[in-house]
Amino acid sequence: MDPSSTPHSAPPPAPSDRSRIPPFQVMRITDAIARRRAAGHDVVSLCAGEPSARPVPGSLQPAGYTGPLGTAPLREAIAGHYRGWYGVAVDPASVAVTTGSSGAFQLVFLAAFNPGDRVALASPGYPAYRNILTALGVQVIELQTGPETRYQPTPALLDAAEVEFGALRGLVIASPANPTGTMLGRDELTDLVSWCGARGVRLISDEIYHGITFGDPADPDRRGVSARALDPGAIVINSFSKYWGMTGWRLGWALLPEDLIAPMEALASNFALSPPAPAQEMALTAFTPETYAERDAIVADFARARQLILDAERDLDWGVAAPADGAFYYYSDLGPQLERFGSATGYAAELLERADVAVVPGLDFDPVAGDRAVRLSYAAGEPAIVEALERILRFQRR
Amino acid sequence: MDPSSTPHSAPPPAPSDRSRIPPFQVMRITDAIARRRAAGHDVVSLCAGEPSARPVPGSLQPAGYTGPLGTAPLREAIAGHYRGWYGVAVDPASVAVTTGSSGAFQLVFLAAFNPGDRVALASPGYPAYRNILTALGVQVIELQTGPETRYQPTPALLDAAEVEFGALRGLVIASPANPTGTMLGRDELTDLVSWCGARGVRLISDEIYHGITFGDPADPDRRGVSARALDPGAIVINSFSKYWGMTGWRLGWALLPEDLIAPMEALASNFALSPPAPAQEMALTAFTPETYAERDAIVADFARARQLILDAERDLDWGVAAPADGAFYYYSDLGPQLERFGSATGYAAELLERADVAVVPGLDFDPVAGDRAVRLSYAAGEPAIVEALERILRFQRR
Repeated sequence: MDPSSTPHSAPPPAPSDRSRIPPFQVMRITDAIARRRAAGHDVVSLCAGEPSARPVPGSLQPAGYTGPLGTAPLREAIAGHYRGWYGVAVDPASVAVTTGSSGAFQLVFLAAFNPGDRVALASPGYPAYRNILTALGVQVIELQTGPETRYQPTPALLDAAEVEFGALRGLVIASPANPTGTMLGRDELTDLVSWCGARGVRLISDEIYHGITFGDPADPDRRGVSARALDPGAIVINSFSKYWGMTGWRLGWALLPEDLIAPMEALASNFALSPPAPAQEMALTAFTPETYAERDAIVADFARARQLILDAERDLDWGVAAPADGAFYYYSDLGPQLERFGSATGYAAELLERADVAVVPGLDFDPVAGDRAVRLSYAAGEPAIVEALERILRFQRR
Repeated sequence: MDPSSTPHSAPPPAPSDRSRIPPFQVMRITDAIARRRAAGHDVVSLCAGEPSARPVPGSLQPAGYTGPLGTAPLREAIAGHYRGWYGVAVDPASVAVTTGSSGAFQLVFLAAFNPGDRVALASPGYPAYRNILTALGVQVIELQTGPETRYQPTPALLDAAEVEFGALRGLVIASPANPTGTMLGRDELTDLVSWCGARGVRLISDEIYHGITFGDPADPDRRGVSARALDPGAIVINSFSKYWGMTGWRLGWALLPEDLIAPMEALASNFALSPPAPAQEMALTAFTPETYAERDAIVADFARARQLILDAERDLDWGVAAPADGAFYYYSDLGPQLERFGSATGYAAELLERADVAVVPGLDFDPVAGDRAVRLSYAAGEPAIVEALERILRFQRR
């Protein structure tokens, strides 16, 4: 599909009323000064309230604010990443660098939705979507998913939700998903994009686990299909935390449709001032062939850890597991173990107490059916998984 | 006043309804694992979705998530800072490390206020208070201040606001203030604390510019008076950005009353996951005698830059300026210059265009009367101020 041809037959809803706050001019003037300096002017700035722009002795390394949506070189580098991985042209001006994907979610939700709007998402799913939306007054519509749709939303589930609850204003999807690891194929994603486009529903695509995938290396979609490649109106959220392993640095980004750029800038300049500067500097090295190769080697390590779990499925004697297409999660119903431990919460607590293995009970991800399931992260790597599996099997045998 | 005796005669309002979201359990389990490991257990964690906990080659330095309210050592170190500077005992559990003071403001406002609540603040003031509150549906009550109250709120202004708008739920104060630099003395702050305590109004005290003050070195209150020293129910917000010059690292903190700790943890674990980890590591060195001495030397440099502006007041031929007690701001009415340039916005634009000096027009800080004033930050230091004053005077002479 030509990414410049939008599939929208209904316009998206307007940016939220609450995003109509003025941008913090000081942060915009910072940008104006940077442009003037780039043009060769010797500007004396008495604008910024930042002592750190000056040399400082001692152990605290200075680092100044950047523009509220990030530095120009990093926004350009991220746009380049979309050319490289997805063959999509992205305007750097539509890239908003944020404080982790967390920073992107809160600002995008504020920019896109008013209190009372209905936004759908899959359950089980990443709990912060639900909790941030709820705290911001948005009505969360949980689409209860299971093996029959590979734990992903479908047009049929969305239709049913609209019949039950009323018109939706947004849909949050994730592929690969947390906690299930399942992915949307190009066809399934296209169906969801079309469904949203036909109704003016904003699509927010969490692509934070792109690249941590275990499919055929020859498959052009093996990194994951970006919603941005199917619809320039889609909001894409991503981060340096997962594929690039920079979790603690708190750096992510959003790709924005044209109408949300100014609201996001206004919100970011008030809510965050700027994303962390040292992290932005470091992230400039993320898109080199060397770094991709390093990260792919780590993904190959995840693949081996994943295989260890899949090979142990029979011994574990749990229930139905989600297809672990990507991310580094294995999400499984505990099946027969539930009879003994009562709930996933009980299972996880006893496992930590008696065997010193920590897993996450599914209630975080699915308040309805989640206390039957656990999520294992195999990001800890092969040796940790070997040890954990031994301990789990010994724990269950007792 | 004994900080353990609260001056509250009316209880504060309950935490907000919207803060009643579940904490993200994964982040809490991270804490449980840390405690278990500290007790000597060899825990295998399959919990965290963080590849960065593993050694990684190449240029991207790994850094893991921390607890949602920060690392234990940093929370303890911040508590120690209150003993050292203010002689106040602070429980490290009441310290929430945040992504800059910006992160603290958004989370505190979410935790403390429901949509429709009325919160007062001084105008001119830091625009992000107003804009974050507005975006979160809180009704901002602007207290128009001027030289007669040294640009600070007073009980009389609060009484008048309640008569005009109805009962307040919160008051945001700042000392030293941005953009004016004015400070609340111990008596004035005590009056505001008492006014809030008698009415169950939450007091949020922005103390980000503490330590950047120019009073008598022998004065025990010279760093600024912390609201926490007068009322353990006060919410104090501070940051490593100003006195410690770590702006771009995005690291701040809040001191919380007991009833807001759990709501803040729930909000932080969903909205932010954790504050930036490398910044938290670095900030551990902030509270040594060596670092305090380094930072005080920089404050002495600010003092010289400030004096240059004060000495140039007659030549500048502007109007009434706020008393520049602290921070690194000089906020002044443009007085006679307004006749020539029409507005502060016009003045600032021409000054940048013709003299390459950037100052901030006051409209950011005061939507009503601010276009008569400009804010100069002298954080840029002495040489920059010398050059800027020369250029400004030359610009005005033309």
